[in-house]
Amino acid sequence: MEKKPSIPKGTRDFGPAEMAKRNYIFDTIKDVFKLYGFKQIETPAMEMLSTLMGKYGEEGDKLLFKILDSGDFLRGVDPALIEAGDCPRLAAQLCEKGLRYDLTVPFARFVVMHRQELQFPFKRYQIQPVWRADRPQKGRYREFYQCDADVIGSTSLVNEIELLGLIAEVMKRLKINVTIKLNNRKVLAGIAELIGEPDKIIDITVAIDKIDKIGIDKVNEELASKGISAEAIARLTPIITITGTTESRLKQLAGLLADSETGRLGVEELQTVLAGASRLGLGDIIELDVSLARGLNYYTGTIIEVKARDVQIGSITGGGRYDNLTGVFGMPDVSGVGISFGADRIYDVLNTLDLYPPTIASSTRLLFLNLGEAEEARSMEYLMEARAAGINAEIYPDRSKMKKQMNYANATAVPFVAIVGETELAESKLTLKNMQTGEQKVVTIAEAIAELA
Amino acid sequence: MEKKPSIPKGTRDFGPAEMAKRNYIFDTIKDVFKLYGFKQIETPAMEMLSTLMGKYGEEGDKLLFKILDSGDFLRGVDPALIEAGDCPRLAAQLCEKGLRYDLTVPFARFVVMHRQELQFPFKRYQIQPVWRADRPQKGRYREFYQCDADVIGSTSLVNEIELLGLIAEVMKRLKINVTIKLNNRKVLAGIAELIGEPDKIIDITVAIDKIDKIGIDKVNEELASKGISAEAIARLTPIITITGTTESRLKQLAGLLADSETGRLGVEELQTVLAGASRLGLGDIIELDVSLARGLNYYTGTIIEVKARDVQIGSITGGGRYDNLTGVFGMPDVSGVGISFGADRIYDVLNTLDLYPPTIASSTRLLFLNLGEAEEARSMEYLMEARAAGINAEIYPDRSKMKKQMNYANATAVPFVAIVGETELAESKLTLKNMQTGEQKVVTIAEAIAELA
Repeated sequence: MEKKPSIPKGTRDFGPAEMAKRNYIFDTIKDVFKLYGFKQIETPAMEMLSTLMGKYGEEGDKLLFKILDSGDFLRGVDPALIEAGDCPRLAAQLCEKGLRYDLTVPFARFVVMHRQELQFPFKRYQIQPVWRADRPQKGRYREFYQCDADVIGSTSLVNEIELLGLIAEVMKRLKINVTIKLNNRKVLAGIAELIGEPDKIIDITVAIDKIDKIGIDKVNEELASKGISAEAIARLTPIITITGTTESRLKQLAGLLADSETGRLGVEELQTVLAGASRLGLGDIIELDVSLARGLNYYTGTIIEVKARDVQIGSITGGGRYDNLTGVFGMPDVSGVGISFGADRIYDVLNTLDLYPPTIASSTRLLFLNLGEAEEARSMEYLMEARAAGINAEIYPDRSKMKKQMNYANATAVPFVAIVGETELAESKLTLKNMQTGEQKVVTIAEAIAELA
Repeated sequence: MEKKPSIPKGTRDFGPAEMAKRNYIFDTIKDVFKLYGFKQIETPAMEMLSTLMGKYGEEGDKLLFKILDSGDFLRGVDPALIEAGDCPRLAAQLCEKGLRYDLTVPFARFVVMHRQELQFPFKRYQIQPVWRADRPQKGRYREFYQCDADVIGSTSLVNEIELLGLIAEVMKRLKINVTIKLNNRKVLAGIAELIGEPDKIIDITVAIDKIDKIGIDKVNEELASKGISAEAIARLTPIITITGTTESRLKQLAGLLADSETGRLGVEELQTVLAGASRLGLGDIIELDVSLARGLNYYTGTIIEVKARDVQIGSITGGGRYDNLTGVFGMPDVSGVGISFGADRIYDVLNTLDLYPPTIASSTRLLFLNLGEAEEARSMEYLMEARAAGINAEIYPDRSKMKKQMNYANATAVPFVAIVGETELAESKLTLKNMQTGEQKVVTIAEAIAELA
């Protein structure tokens, strides 16, 4: 007999109210994924550790949850590792499986294993939990959902434009005001190349990002401290200090990067994507941001990041183009572009701004009270009629006191209550009570259904 | 550079076609759960091993997937256990978490932890994967979904009637012909009590189950071999050999069990449930089956099992009433009744009988071909109009050869293709091709939308 059960730290239970909110978010994203022609896949929670290890850096390897082998897991384990207390290498002998850490590596593995059955370009979406043995803290969990959409096997920038449209549609439906920030890795590479520091893309980008806050002098000091030459800094200054609209900044950038083939290509890609998005009416919410450096060790072209305008919170969606999804599994040249919605941050934004539609409070729309044997039998007939008309409905199962039943109605936020008492039974009617307004009237079941439909 | 990735044995990838079928099943079940007023919860994939261990018997403990502790997992481990190679006890020191094995224990844990926030009676549904380190074989996986609905905190038989209605509705929507078999543990207890062998319920039930196949003499031999006395067997014979309709068998049973209070109560419960279900029009598909012994160490009242009539396969749904869901966690007297849909078996039944609606083959209804720069731009405008009208649609992203694009259309089973070529561009129209009939016509985008709506 154990007492006080608990759940692993960093994990969460979701009760009915939270699930209703989360389903609203996931269903919205899923509907838009389908609206844009993406197709769902699912992969197992457990992957072989050989699939996962080495894909997320040394730190990532440590954050993988590893599954102890079944049965005699000590067989074949090197006793010297136990003696030495070498946990990392011992773990690799005790475990052959781990929990997935993201959806990208499993997707790459999926593509390699199923390439013969897949139709390219392949537009897949995937909404599943991932697990990371991170130190839990506010807003960071050990189990959380990722919602990814990717198009692979196509280098067309139409895909980028489509993904921007998709993001805008999701945010519109969720009523979140956003700015979609856009950059291109080739532009950053072009800048670094142009100033003669091709290996310092990240330092340069980080510095550019701070110019609004600390000013050009401090930025240049920081660049110098990173070992960037005075000459390079001088060449960088006019690029960093570009101002104006997205369109005019792009034009200036084109001029400044004219000598770098990579840089020019990046500007052209940005122009194509921005022009396409503008034609679809997205011009107002998309912003060029040359300091955007998301996933710089992975993305090779377009970089996308979405910020909520009305809440101070990190990026709520992000993505970009990559050149080599599956190379690590021996299948080269799979290019693609993808985005990932941060469901937990979106949840926080909707909670902060209270943007949920009122209807999600209760999925049940009608509750029949239970006032006696004959009343119960009649109520159950009406209940079936209401359900046949598509109305989510239930009956209070016990013949408890009226007060207790009404407490249940209030606590579960059901919008309508149906009462079949002695009088209603005799008249083949029911009393329909609107729980929001308090209004009640005696009607037939057909009239009640019409009212709720 | 690794080659040939694989997935853990007993687990599965689901591609777009399989996901469409699985979503059809899950969405149908979910819709009916909501129609009946059930509310969704989700619990973490990982539970504390202290929550899971000892709940599924000794065999079950071995089938739990255990998560190796992070960091220095050797700390505090008893070296004697390593020396002795005592894997089971060592596992308990190396791991504090495991993957959930079913949805019932996590639900019980959830109820105990959240009892203050919950409204009783609590009608919850939960659809999540579970993991078991079972030997994989045909139809048995190490990762599979369970779909459970339970009502707890109410002893009313209205709940049983409601669950029978719910099962019938799911099966009707899925077009599966079923027989719902019904029994009551109290009837079995009454029989065992009556013949003076209260501890041999299971032996007796197993024997009853075989009477159709092997005859009364062989059944009696088997009972004798289990140590049941000749006198008890003589008293059992008239009970076992009852024949007739469900109604008449129940009536005979009531007479035969008149001396057992428990048995009488069981018969009364069955009568109430059957009468309620008959009033809802379910009489034809429900059958009394006194040999039904599902979950006998757990269920205390009603026992339910659902068989598909047109496919030879085990039970596709089952459930029953229990008295003590949460006692093991220190919260006594939580009674409830629940059912669990076997999603994988239902999937097998639908595949065998090919019962899927044709519309699920492609969630995308319209594909725009991509025939040139100006054509692409126009197509993308039309595409947005189609989507604004709620039509799931996409554009082939690359300006590839017509043949390649049509191959994609065929392979993805999209029902309509839209072609904007030079002529259509000039006329502000498109050619709409019905991929099933081959028929094609030149229309405006508004006409195309009207056709697809």
